[in-house]
Amino acid sequence: MFFHRKELQFHAKPDRPDPLYAKKLQEILGGQFGEISVAMQYLFQGWNSRGDAKYKDLIMDTGTEEIGHCEMIATMIARLLDDAPVHEQEAAAKDPMIGAIMGGMNPHHAIVSGLGAVPENSAGVPWNAGYIVASGNILADFRANLNAESQGRLQVARLYEMTEDRGIKEMLSFLLARDTMHQNQWYAAIKELEEQQGVTVPASVPAEWEATDFSYTLYNFSEGEEAKAGSWASGISPDGRGTFSYDSEPAAYGGKQELNPPPPYMHSTPPLQVKKL
Amino acid sequence: MFFHRKELQFHAKPDRPDPLYAKKLQEILGGQFGEISVAMQYLFQGWNSRGDAKYKDLIMDTGTEEIGHCEMIATMIARLLDDAPVHEQEAAAKDPMIGAIMGGMNPHHAIVSGLGAVPENSAGVPWNAGYIVASGNILADFRANLNAESQGRLQVARLYEMTEDRGIKEMLSFLLARDTMHQNQWYAAIKELEEQQGVTVPASVPAEWEATDFSYTLYNFSEGEEAKAGSWASGISPDGRGTFSYDSEPAAYGGKQELNPPPPYMHSTPPLQVKKL
Amino acid sequence: MFFHRKELQFHAKPDRPDPLYAKKLQEILGGQFGEISVAMQYLFQGWNSRGDAKYKDLIMDTGTEEIGHCEMIATMIARLLDDAPVHEQEAAAKDPMIGAIMGGMNPHHAIVSGLGAVPENSAGVPWNAGYIVASGNILADFRANLNAESQGRLQVARLYEMTEDRGIKEMLSFLLARDTMHQNQWYAAIKELEEQQGVTVPASVPAEWEATDFSYTLYNFSEGEEAKAGSWASGISPDGRGTFSYDSEPAAYGGKQELNPPPPYMHSTPPLQVKKL
Amino acid sequence: MFFHRKELQFHAKPDRPDPLYAKKLQEILGGQFGEISVAMQYLFQGWNSRGDAKYKDLIMDTGTEEIGHCEMIATMIARLLDDAPVHEQEAAAKDPMIGAIMGGMNPHHAIVSGLGAVPENSAGVPWNAGYIVASGNILADFRANLNAESQGRLQVARLYEMTEDRGIKEMLSFLLARDTMHQNQWYAAIKELEEQQGVTVPASVPAEWEATDFSYTLYNFSEGEEAKAGSWASGISPDGRGTFSYDSEPAAYGGKQELNPPPPYMHSTPPLQVKKL
Amino acid sequence: MFFHRKELQFHAKPDRPDPLYAKKLQEILGGQFGEISVAMQYLFQGWNSRGDAKYKDLIMDTGTEEIGHCEMIATMIARLLDDAPVHEQEAAAKDPMIGAIMGGMNPHHAIVSGLGAVPENSAGVPWNAGYIVASGNILADFRANLNAESQGRLQVARLYEMTEDRGIKEMLSFLLARDTMHQNQWYAAIKELEEQQGVTVPASVPAEWEATDFSYTLYNFSEGEEAKAGSWASGISPDGRGTFSYDSEPAAYGGKQELNPPPPYMHSTPPLQVKKL
Amino acid sequence: MFFHRKELQFHAKPDRPDPLYAKKLQEILGGQFGEISVAMQYLFQGWNSRGDAKYKDLIMDTGTEEIGHCEMIATMIARLLDDAPVHEQEAAAKDPMIGAIMGGMNPHHAIVSGLGAVPENSAGVPWNAGYIVASGNILADFRANLNAESQGRLQVARLYEMTEDRGIKEMLSFLLARDTMHQNQWYAAIKELEEQQGVTVPASVPAEWEATDFSYTLYNFSEGEEAKAGSWASGISPDGRGTFSYDSEPAAYGGKQELNPPPPYMHSTPPLQVKKL
Repeated sequence: MFFHRKELQFHAKPDRPDPLYAKKLQEILGGQFGEISVAMQYLFQGWNSRGDAKYKDLIMDTGTEEIGHCEMIATMIARLLDDAPVHEQEAAAKDPMIGAIMGGMNPHHAIVSGLGAVPENSAGVPWNAGYIVASGNILADFRANLNAESQGRLQVARLYEMTEDRGIKEMLSFLLARDTMHQNQWYAAIKELEEQQGVTVPASVPAEWEATDFSYTLYNFSEGEEAKAGSWASGISPDGRGTFSYDSEPAAYGGKQELNPPPPYMHSTPPLQVKKL
Repeated sequence: MFFHRKELQFHAKPDRPDPLYAKKLQEILGGQFGEISVAMQYLFQGWNSRGDAKYKDLIMDTGTEEIGHCEMIATMIARLLDDAPVHEQEAAAKDPMIGAIMGGMNPHHAIVSGLGAVPENSAGVPWNAGYIVASGNILADFRANLNAESQGRLQVARLYEMTEDRGIKEMLSFLLARDTMHQNQWYAAIKELEEQQGVTVPASVPAEWEATDFSYTLYNFSEGEEAKAGSWASGISPDGRGTFSYDSEPAAYGGKQELNPPPPYMHSTPPLQVKKL
Repeated sequence: MFFHRKELQFHAKPDRPDPLYAKKLQEILGGQFGEISVAMQYLFQGWNSRGDAKYKDLIMDTGTEEIGHCEMIATMIARLLDDAPVHEQEAAAKDPMIGAIMGGMNPHHAIVSGLGAVPENSAGVPWNAGYIVASGNILADFRANLNAESQGRLQVARLYEMTEDRGIKEMLSFLLARDTMHQNQWYAAIKELEEQQGVTVPASVPAEWEATDFSYTLYNFSEGEEAKAGSWASGISPDGRGTFSYDSEPAAYGGKQELNPPPPYMHSTPPLQVKKL
Repeated sequence: MFFHRKELQFHAKPDRPDPLYAKKLQEILGGQFGEISVAMQYLFQGWNSRGDAKYKDLIMDTGTEEIGHCEMIATMIARLLDDAPVHEQEAAAKDPMIGAIMGGMNPHHAIVSGLGAVPENSAGVPWNAGYIVASGNILADFRANLNAESQGRLQVARLYEMTEDRGIKEMLSFLLARDTMHQNQWYAAIKELEEQQGVTVPASVPAEWEATDFSYTLYNFSEGEEAKAGSWASGISPDGRGTFSYDSEPAAYGGKQELNPPPPYMHSTPPLQVKKL
Repeated sequence: MFFHRKELQFHAKPDRPDPLYAKKLQEILGGQFGEISVAMQYLFQGWNSRGDAKYKDLIMDTGTEEIGHCEMIATMIARLLDDAPVHEQEAAAKDPMIGAIMGGMNPHHAIVSGLGAVPENSAGVPWNAGYIVASGNILADFRANLNAESQGRLQVARLYEMTEDRGIKEMLSFLLARDTMHQNQWYAAIKELEEQQGVTVPASVPAEWEATDFSYTLYNFSEGEEAKAGSWASGISPDGRGTFSYDSEPAAYGGKQELNPPPPYMHSTPPLQVKKL
Repeated sequence: MFFHRKELQFHAKPDRPDPLYAKKLQEILGGQFGEISVAMQYLFQGWNSRGDAKYKDLIMDTGTEEIGHCEMIATMIARLLDDAPVHEQEAAAKDPMIGAIMGGMNPHHAIVSGLGAVPENSAGVPWNAGYIVASGNILADFRANLNAESQGRLQVARLYEMTEDRGIKEMLSFLLARDTMHQNQWYAAIKELEEQQGVTVPASVPAEWEATDFSYTLYNFSEGEEAKAGSWASGISPDGRGTFSYDSEPAAYGGKQELNPPPPYMHSTPPLQVKKL
């Protein structure tokens, strides 16, 4: 059960409106690694969690915080849209900045949402749940989380440099900080789990299920052997169970691919006739 | 530039057809973490790579291998679809196994692809590029890769237990092994990069951009403090730059959210009139 | 800013597992009118709200409640998935119920989420934000909300009849009740707004913008005149500004559609040559 | 069975080409509430209609009209694209209006459709059937229709103010009028149905299915009680079956959410081991 | 402008209900090559047509017919859904056919549409406009149309063999016939256009734009030279402008792919540091 | 199994960066008929191929080449993004070209991919597998391929005229040439197959399945008879099995559409009550 407090977690006031930037900021609200994604990802992980209470609590704390981040960014976007020049078509012939805005703002901000945020990314594509990860294996999922916070913080840093607006930069400085925390917390939790279970997910696969002859070899499928120089091509593997090797000329173990002809009811081009060509 | 050798990387012959399992196997071909996803993810990372040759070569080797994995799984799916009972409607009233197949196989296998694999997940949803990650920051992307291989191996393990077919199990045993390698290789590469740059991505964010007061605190947004017991709530943070703390009652730093009323041309419900209610 | 209490708003315990029903229940979690939709719809309406505080509070109260409904249904789905027969392939030849389950359950429940809920509808299609509505005009949006709660309650009622499980029925009886409240609350708020502004949205369109000759006529574009008998074909219109009429043979006011030929750089099939045929 | 007359329902001639506006106008052709949506929504409602002929005729009349609206708007878009400066790259350095157009027009208009309309919204996202509603319950569906016409007319009004072109404004004045009619007709039909069945959809739910203790209470899930002042928080409910109340501190009736641990074949992180941390 | 006649183009009465088949039949209504696709494809081609009247009339005739085919198939689906056993959960344990239906029918038919057709394919994925083609080049588009009718008729033939129901087979026999006509008509129109313009689309590309050294060579990018035996590897090319050749070992003309390092503001992993590893 | 050579098939070096053009070029990488589409389409056709080796080899040769085309275009896009003015917000007020770029470039190029190509079309919509065709019937599929290469070459020609950059034009001249080859090769293969099987796909439909009375008639569903003049309205049909005719006033053979009322458990608006209105 959830509750809402009518205050923002951090202030979200731009110095001045900027509809072009509003469009760009949508990426960290409704993009692949925006706040909707992490909120939904953590909530589903939490709701589906069948394990230790401390992990579940950590997930729910963070997921609930992220709903509040959606609120902050949505607020910032609405404020950046104040005074958008959707009304001044003719003036654009004279002022290149207005021209850029008219051509460049997300039309949904003007036509669909009435100068409010939309659940879309910076290209105007609606958010969809194909972005999120909740597998029931928390080591796998914490890796998904660490990735999400890494991609997210990278995008925030890029957005930070794309504006001179002090108010926007302040909000982004807060998000950079929270993404630092979230990367560190998932990192710490991952270390705990890897120490218990080992590096390879899932830990529960019995050795006899795996064709272990193929478990520690890097195959050279692309011309050139630069990758042979890396720490992944020789030495003990991080999971401690194997020794990396490098295979310059990978063999094929599967033979020719030959499929039976389809039955007549499939109405495929009859293969026998075709062979007579 | 790419070349194709007409042999499978590993054999892909089921002991017997099984259209229901063919549907399930689609997940690791066309699902969020299927082989299309990793192939496309690595190829785009490689093509966009602007850095060190050994990383780029590693990425291209692996991406090229994954196209071959698509081929193996597509072949297996086609063979599982041989003799699918799409023709024997009436018989189903008597045989529950045929009933299960008729009700449960992916109709696209019968109607659309002519008993071949489709670029869809196990629920029949087409693959889309919103699944993949290629950010230009290789530490972030290698975390995405480690996650993808973790989720992928987890799904392979689950599929392994869902069949008694020895031929299927053999192909899956090979995929388990390759996912072991790929997890270990990305893990090793991540270690290298973290040792150089530190844990927090991106490494290039200057300290003054970040509101560092908020960088190492876990906020308790959900009732109960189980998460306080974790390694993420006290002690030195993994990036070595801060000390974790725990805030039981997180404050709001942003004040009330108040938006200006929209201009009249937005045709929103006029707020002034509404206030007179 | 949001907070989570670690209790469900209502109990969500089925009498027994039922993976087929788990798949169906996904509709009211991740479908077009599922709880994710109403939660996101109300939150975006609230965050974008630029008007009267009592409406905004109503929206935020309801949106926050709906996140809790997602939690209840996700919990129910996870419990319905306990003991799913993903492991008993061979047995299916004998037991039609297991056959139905194996063929009919959502494969994502077994392969992707580890027996947890997924953010998808009952056909396995991921939720997307193209479902939701937040226009900045609250009368329009409250109509969207009334529709969403009507469709939602209809689906809950249909699901109610599709099970004999007492535990499921109890949770659905709670959802039926909350949907009753939500329909009634949006209905009451709509009445208020319509009394102030009139029936036609948006109220702020000046009469001179509208080709009012066409504002109250039902055109008979389909053979047969049954629709002429309705209250929408004669009498005063609900907005009180016109009189309904019925036009049996609608005229075309637009003339022929003729487009200029495309410029040569479009590389369209050259129309002049074509005309010489 | 359908027939086409080679005339437009209303004229669709802009005073001059305007590729930026062509992009914006796509919203009411291929957007969530564009003409494709209402055409498809009404046609599916009509084809699935199992009830009274006068409703079915009304639905089919309106659905068939909307196909003609698609035609009008598609024609207008094609005309707005005449002379689009897709050919004058270099000139843009000098003329800001051409710069705005080059940067701002939908690239599909130039590359994909050859200066014709596309089945996309104003952000370039293809139309999809997840937008439409046809439930088999006509009161629910007429609410969906009233919402669609409200959102649609709002968008037309916003687009009206975004241009000075007299020809565009004339076509929009016709659409404003038809949306007025359609709002009024669905409103009238809704009144009829509500008088018969009552306000709450579906009407056929027996009282004993519903946990009626929860049917008329507004829960205060967000801080602040502004919503208590509304007509939805006290007095008789619109359906006449209850009395609204307001609950300042909503209780949780569901207890803790606890899920059984997953079976070992799910390869989830083993919860027992984890607890030993 | 469009009109609707209240009769079906052909009868659509199954001998008996069959919810499993209703799900399958959705493919030719809402699938990639279903009737919605061809209707929308032809209407957009017609509305965007800037050329010869006889082509435009042909397109509009066919597009308008296809709306009527949607109606026929939607009607058939609704009738197949009569008496669907959505109510008889418990009985399934005994009757395998009911089990197959319960597990196998599209849940949307029961929960969302009230036993009506849905705008989805046979896997339950909503129709989207990314399926259709309207490029403004009618030779290209007629090839798209010939393909669509070929894929469509193939799917109808497969569906024909998947049922014993005489009523369904009759409707499909009509669709097979209309697809025969449509394939033949597009074929005839293509011949006309190819005779005028030649085989290669678009015809208007000047020779000097094209690197004609590469215009008629088949490159052997896959091991084995079976393709060398085809009519596409030697002899005069169909467009009459070249001679096919076969290159067993294709050269690379592009040199190494090397990208400049990204600017620092991209926060990519710094390539210089990385090179020092 | 696949291999990668570290050279581009053709050079991909623009004379100068151009972020606006980079956005447009995405269409032929990640659009409906971009290189991802043809690569995936041919690979799936090849992997599912159950017929003659020479066709399969042709398909695999071409599919493998197309992966290399993705690489070329991705490389070109990355180079066009060098020096993109994502950093110079303020300058835009003075320079209209920078304004056009800021407003017009794909934000994903700046925020998401770090100045690399993205798997999206020119409007920023992610590629999805609903674009591709692999039916198991090679005549149908070769028609899909001929269409894809026709649409693709048309788009390349349009892009060619939208730039003055010599480097871009050179790469496009190579793509024009390869599309010429691919159109010609599929054309030649189609001729072979049509000579064997006839024109109508699938060839295997027995005459008695088809309602042949309807197989060669063009119905006049749109006002005006211009289409009667075409080669598709009289004379022998291309498949040689019929004679085209033209029907000015198509009859309805299906009678009224009437559906049974839904059962009460569907909770549809009760039709009987409604009729009493």
